[in-house]
Amino acid sequence: MNPTPPGRAQLKSRHVNLDTGRENVVVISRRSTALRPELFRGFSRVELRSGSQTQLATMLLTDDDSLVGPDELGMAEPAFRRFGLPVGSYIAVAPAPSPSSLDAVRAKIQGKTLEAPDIGAIVDDLAHYRYSDMETAAFLVSSANFMTSGELIALTEAMARAGTQLRWSAKTVVDKHCIGGIPGNRTSMIVVPIVAAHGLTIPKTSSRAITSPAGTADTMEVLARVDLSVEAMKEVVASCNGCLAWGGHVNLSPADDILISVERPLALDTHEQMVASIMSKKLAAGSTHLLIDLPVGPSAKLTTASEAMRLRKLFQFVGDRFGLEVEIVTTDGRQPIGNGIGPSLEAQDVMAVLANEPEAPRDLREKSLRLAAHLLEHDPNLRGGAGYALASELLTSGAALRQMVKIIEAQGPAPSKSELGNLTADIRANRSGVVSTIDCLRLNRLARTAGAPLDKGAGIKLFKKLGNRVEQGEPLYRIHAFEPSGFDLAVGMAELDSAYRLETEVGASP
Amino acid sequence: MNPTPPGRAQLKSRHVNLDTGRENVVVISRRSTALRPELFRGFSRVELRSGSQTQLATMLLTDDDSLVGPDELGMAEPAFRRFGLPVGSYIAVAPAPSPSSLDAVRAKIQGKTLEAPDIGAIVDDLAHYRYSDMETAAFLVSSANFMTSGELIALTEAMARAGTQLRWSAKTVVDKHCIGGIPGNRTSMIVVPIVAAHGLTIPKTSSRAITSPAGTADTMEVLARVDLSVEAMKEVVASCNGCLAWGGHVNLSPADDILISVERPLALDTHEQMVASIMSKKLAAGSTHLLIDLPVGPSAKLTTASEAMRLRKLFQFVGDRFGLEVEIVTTDGRQPIGNGIGPSLEAQDVMAVLANEPEAPRDLREKSLRLAAHLLEHDPNLRGGAGYALASELLTSGAALRQMVKIIEAQGPAPSKSELGNLTADIRANRSGVVSTIDCLRLNRLARTAGAPLDKGAGIKLFKKLGNRVEQGEPLYRIHAFEPSGFDLAVGMAELDSAYRLETEVGASP
Repeated sequence: MNPTPPGRAQLKSRHVNLDTGRENVVVISRRSTALRPELFRGFSRVELRSGSQTQLATMLLTDDDSLVGPDELGMAEPAFRRFGLPVGSYIAVAPAPSPSSLDAVRAKIQGKTLEAPDIGAIVDDLAHYRYSDMETAAFLVSSANFMTSGELIALTEAMARAGTQLRWSAKTVVDKHCIGGIPGNRTSMIVVPIVAAHGLTIPKTSSRAITSPAGTADTMEVLARVDLSVEAMKEVVASCNGCLAWGGHVNLSPADDILISVERPLALDTHEQMVASIMSKKLAAGSTHLLIDLPVGPSAKLTTASEAMRLRKLFQFVGDRFGLEVEIVTTDGRQPIGNGIGPSLEAQDVMAVLANEPEAPRDLREKSLRLAAHLLEHDPNLRGGAGYALASELLTSGAALRQMVKIIEAQGPAPSKSELGNLTADIRANRSGVVSTIDCLRLNRLARTAGAPLDKGAGIKLFKKLGNRVEQGEPLYRIHAFEPSGFDLAVGMAELDSAYRLETEVGASP
Repeated sequence: MNPTPPGRAQLKSRHVNLDTGRENVVVISRRSTALRPELFRGFSRVELRSGSQTQLATMLLTDDDSLVGPDELGMAEPAFRRFGLPVGSYIAVAPAPSPSSLDAVRAKIQGKTLEAPDIGAIVDDLAHYRYSDMETAAFLVSSANFMTSGELIALTEAMARAGTQLRWSAKTVVDKHCIGGIPGNRTSMIVVPIVAAHGLTIPKTSSRAITSPAGTADTMEVLARVDLSVEAMKEVVASCNGCLAWGGHVNLSPADDILISVERPLALDTHEQMVASIMSKKLAAGSTHLLIDLPVGPSAKLTTASEAMRLRKLFQFVGDRFGLEVEIVTTDGRQPIGNGIGPSLEAQDVMAVLANEPEAPRDLREKSLRLAAHLLEHDPNLRGGAGYALASELLTSGAALRQMVKIIEAQGPAPSKSELGNLTADIRANRSGVVSTIDCLRLNRLARTAGAPLDKGAGIKLFKKLGNRVEQGEPLYRIHAFEPSGFDLAVGMAELDSAYRLETEVGASP
């Protein structure tokens, strides 16, 4: 017998086989025994309560008793999973009060500057799924226009504290991060084994792709398991000095994950939010030294050096404030790094570099060595300036490859085979000339249309890079896919615009 | 046999018994024969296409074939109704491109001023349900911070043109509008019959309550049908000079309806958006002379005279720009107008005033006469200043009541009986004194909790108004409800805080 507090009707929980993405959604009968007067207008959010547990959710209505009866509460995913109660539990349902931190969001909308406790309350509500997508968007947009340095610090700190906080026994914990946007560019998977082979601690967590054809976690998953628990990750780092794990399973900065899930569809991308996002994750991950890769190029996230400089200063400002040593390198973001785009193709590039194969992509190797060199310099026992030579030695000697094999074994086997897509098409040059531009955004879109990252073996293998001479009819790249529909679409898109621009060689003009 | 364009998979439509509010939502199988690579990340919006018709929708996933199979497209309400195709139709599904007007929203977020064509494109996308709630919130918040007068004009004009545009044969078409927030206050239902009895054209459209316990459309629906089509509305106006119809069915300014549906849950309420909203509806309704009621009081939407003045100027500015003559009256918003709160109780007040019953609420009668007087003055044949006497004559003689009966008959019978709620409780004064404050917000919330406006007969009947002397234990008001749970909740809330403040009489203190 469940006692019902006055005015708070109880419904019997039921699982509804619907995946509603990031938002909590429940389904209620239009003839529900709870909530009747509020059902139709004005209240689209409800509060669910069972014992001391509460959740907010968006409510959908149904007339279909077989889906959800009048005395039932239909819980979609992820609400069902987050609530964690068995089917048939009694759950009290009431119109949801607006999260109280929304007052601060409204103040921000009106142009006011927020104090740290306001921002802390917003982040706490975000991290506990109390904001609807609409409310999350309101916060993001209100702070996209301007964010003071005080607000940026408060946001970073609150986000870093909202989830798991990893701590390591090593005094020096190095980490690297790239702001993304460049196809290929899987340097982490080479940098981590080099640095770990030398003995520095580098517990790398990475994201999966959201709008790109592969994230480091997707590519690493071709070789090993990446959804490690905090405990499993700690064991791998204890035995290998480093790991290449998916950050999503470790729950670092969960509020940031929610902000990102709304930023992406809105294509909001402010420097302040990017810095708060990255720095909160690195603080939560327990890093002491962070190297950040900022690619600059016409189709990269940063298009000018001055933009890169402003962003660099923002990273340094936040790093200084939290005692996290940040080093920034600006890199060439005019074209993809490596030859593969898509998880399996990128994993092939990485393993070719680690195995010192002659056909391994030189740019990926060089960039990885340069980044690893920076990190190795944090070893106090290393002579200043010796980082590059050491990185090169660790790679050439096979030490890095052996370290990578060790990490792969420690993380466990990959969940599935990852052959390349058996549908292939070569996209050929429609004229002769020298490659003068490669549109990174378009290549990302093509690879994604071909099926990456969901189909690990789908993607693009590049044959030509900037400055290469190409004859008319010669292939520029090969598209790999499994699914005919995505394949057809990608090939059609590539034939319309290959993402490559060829120019007559300067020396050849009169 | 449906030909499938390359890369555009077709699914068979199916109705899913889910009401998703304002947003288009479809359900797709996780093993769908369309959209496979995009399913899991990054694309939460899909484009549906059949013939020349397209719609954007938010996508939910399911593993349950009995809900939606791999070759099916589950369409929830309102997507199913908006698409208007029979079950089993083949519909092409593809990842949705972002509405292109979102670029303008992003520019606005970055602090840029928008040009009229940008705003026109945003409104067009809004009116065609191409924005998700998140995107709508992004636009609202981006323009809540600042809106130039040029943007305000452009927004008003674009919204006015996005839906039905009514035109009338009369040269003078009068209208009135109240910005809301005051319980009771059903002056329109008295003003319209007075003005129409005199022969002026007053085709009044009203909204239903969204967060309040009754809108004029909800209260009028106690007496007559209000969901009139444009044709039906024109017929009523042709025979009665006026009407009291629900605006929602006439589709005036549909983009505004969508903006409001997101403003309300976010509790965003800027003057510019209010002015654009009201003026766009009135322009679309074909009004030439508009009277606006701005109640000012401590728990009203406007709390100070200076706030009311700024808003007045904004209304006049927009009115001048479109040649719509706007007159503003600032009214007493310190307490409810009339004695009833909730559709049936308010309808009783209205009919008592029209029938000149002795116990009819005096404040409602006086305010209505004053507003009607302003509108009657627009009759060029009327001697200046004679409006009030004429309004009074039309009311006292019974002409207004006869006109109301005529309008009710022309609009058709009310859809259902509307007795008062049979669960009642009197809320009594816990001390003696004079009523010094009545909290309008709290009374609205109480009436809504009791079941209004969904239960027409639920609500609050006031026995005491400001300045009335009350003895301890004397009833302040009566709560009416049908549903025990809402009734208990409302009574509990009222006992905690009655919304009334009583003070010792000033004359009684030493």
